[in-house]
Amino acid sequence: MEVKFIPTEQLKEKPDENALGFGNYFTDYMFTMDWTKEKGWHNAVIEPYGSIQLDPASMVLHYAQETFEGLKAYKTKEGKVLLFRPDMNAKRFANSNRRLCMEVLPEEMFVDAIATLVSREKEWIPTIEGTSLYIRPFMFATESAVGVHPSNAYKFMIVLSPVGAYYPEGVNPVKIYVEDEYVRATKGGTGFAKCGGNYAASIAAQVKAEKLGYTQVLWLDGVERKYVEEVGTMNAMFIIDRKIITAPCDGTVLPGVTRDSVIQLLKSWGYVVEERPLAIDELMEAGRNKTLQEAFGTGTAAVISPIGELSYKGESIIINDFQTGEITQRLYDTLTGIQWGKLEDSFHWTYEVN
Amino acid sequence: MEVKFIPTEQLKEKPDENALGFGNYFTDYMFTMDWTKEKGWHNAVIEPYGSIQLDPASMVLHYAQETFEGLKAYKTKEGKVLLFRPDMNAKRFANSNRRLCMEVLPEEMFVDAIATLVSREKEWIPTIEGTSLYIRPFMFATESAVGVHPSNAYKFMIVLSPVGAYYPEGVNPVKIYVEDEYVRATKGGTGFAKCGGNYAASIAAQVKAEKLGYTQVLWLDGVERKYVEEVGTMNAMFIIDRKIITAPCDGTVLPGVTRDSVIQLLKSWGYVVEERPLAIDELMEAGRNKTLQEAFGTGTAAVISPIGELSYKGESIIINDFQTGEITQRLYDTLTGIQWGKLEDSFHWTYEVN
Ligand SMILES: Cc1ncc(COP(=O)(O)O)c(C=O)c1O
Ligand SMILES: Cc1ncc(COP(=O)(O)O)c(C=O)c1O
Repeated sequence: MEVKFIPTEQLKEKPDENALGFGNYFTDYMFTMDWTKEKGWHNAVIEPYGSIQLDPASMVLHYAQETFEGLKAYKTKEGKVLLFRPDMNAKRFANSNRRLCMEVLPEEMFVDAIATLVSREKEWIPTIEGTSLYIRPFMFATESAVGVHPSNAYKFMIVLSPVGAYYPEGVNPVKIYVEDEYVRATKGGTGFAKCGGNYAASIAAQVKAEKLGYTQVLWLDGVERKYVEEVGTMNAMFIIDRKIITAPCDGTVLPGVTRDSVIQLLKSWGYVVEERPLAIDELMEAGRNKTLQEAFGTGTAAVISPIGELSYKGESIIINDFQTGEITQRLYDTLTGIQWGKLEDSFHWTYEVN
Repeated sequence: MEVKFIPTEQLKEKPDENALGFGNYFTDYMFTMDWTKEKGWHNAVIEPYGSIQLDPASMVLHYAQETFEGLKAYKTKEGKVLLFRPDMNAKRFANSNRRLCMEVLPEEMFVDAIATLVSREKEWIPTIEGTSLYIRPFMFATESAVGVHPSNAYKFMIVLSPVGAYYPEGVNPVKIYVEDEYVRATKGGTGFAKCGGNYAASIAAQVKAEKLGYTQVLWLDGVERKYVEEVGTMNAMFIIDRKIITAPCDGTVLPGVTRDSVIQLLKSWGYVVEERPLAIDELMEAGRNKTLQEAFGTGTAAVISPIGELSYKGESIIINDFQTGEITQRLYDTLTGIQWGKLEDSFHWTYEVN
């Protein structure tokens, strides 16, 4: 892939690494590339971060033909720059685009584009504990037309944001509200795709949960409102009687890269992992009788986030005395250890950017 | 509402009224207005139609916080300009925005903005049979941030497009494919809202139906895949044994302005209208034994669109010998008659633009 480079006139001042928050700052450069039926992928450019021009009839503004990904770059003590399983994001991006009838970006191009941009923006990778460079690849429909149909033109972009913790709680336990009014996904829908519409639809429940004092919602399935699916931007795992249980990826749940990595780690440590529908009633009962030992969310943004409390239909259960559990902590330490190049990468998950 | 006007340097040439298609041409001007927490609604402008500037981290490009409406302006023989029930679109727009936690535009402002823009663009309203000026109001999130939350800034816009028939078939019967794999909406989701995500999710089924030789899909409910909901961009009505049956508006179906108008007309003519779940099995059986007399879709774009054939699980039923039915035709004539100011507007549905 040939990438044109347009230098910026003025580099930005880098933000204080202690007060990054999540997604508030963007680096000096962005990557853009266009697709049309006639030309295929063309016009790959790394250029100064800045506004783009969009026709008001661009289909993305009306019919939300848009998909995205999220991954992170880490800088090791030795100054190496590592990505974590970018091939998984490339695959998921392709699957999201297929579901939305958007052009599919070849997986190597996806990884290449990220590596090229991150390599140029190395200086922006923060290094203090818990920080990283968040990478946001996204694609959207740019055809100007008012009928509903697959767009004949797309733009693929990557922006970078130095970030701290996703939740204000950091790696401390969060309180989760089990949502039984709003639904995130049903089979036959777009739950497994990382597309804008899923997130727009989810905001109402999140606002409601926050008003009630919770950090996030735990979604139930859309058909029976009976089975536990996932948390806002994390997959959810529950340790009941020493077994780890998580929702299966059969169409409604986002197949998380962290989820997959955690399952592999747990199995390698000898744990039993069950990917199966877990009824909210079973979960609450396990909470009551304390066989629910630990619970946590997994996701790129929050890494591993312990769940300290679950509230469902007015009843609250406290998990592990609202403390980070032993397995939760071990997963956090191992994953971040591998991501930061501090531990041996026996699964070959990291990808070095030159 | 004070609206600034920025004149264009060069008016466009108007397209041939016989070859408009749907949503391919846009008029000389567009309306834009911004909302921020600090300033509320501000900066209302009618300006030359053209590109807008968007930050690549604008939330609309990632999380699809975006809603839209669709209505039409008609020019009567006497040169009057009429809108059709714009207050209904204003209300639905507000409901869509509420569901997506977006700022709600006051209903009078919505209608005012449309009237002001259409009034300026009167010359663009085509007058030959079956044409009109399609009005597309839309709103989207403009905050630049990568976390999922309600945006703190929005842009409201209106663009206008002179249009002909929505379907290539015009007012001739269409063939409809009953979709039993993909799902459009479930209770607790966003089915009743006119938001981009619903349409992005629907494209795959539409592409599939078109490949199989059908014009559109008929959606089934997302829970049991048993009840008939609506068609791509139309509500669906079925006349079985002289009764008109249509899906209830209880969360999954878009409450169509045309649907509501048709129900009122039918009742005023003495017909029984049942808003109730209609099982696909009941519908197919009625098709087989010919008690299914007529079927049609209702929507602003297509007005009344007769359904000539339904295909479900490999079985096809032909409705009314693939001819436009009597009631279907009467509804089309009456509705378009009122919209064009040719018939008495006893329901006070039209709104004159000065
Ligand atoms: C809905 C949803 N579920 C789960 C996840 C976790 O996926 P990953 O581990 O790939 O970041 C995310 C975040 O990407 C998400 O948005
Ligand atoms: C999904 C859907 N259903 C129904 C309709 C019909 O609604 P209306 O009659 O207000 O145009 C539309 C079009 O607006 C639509 O997009």
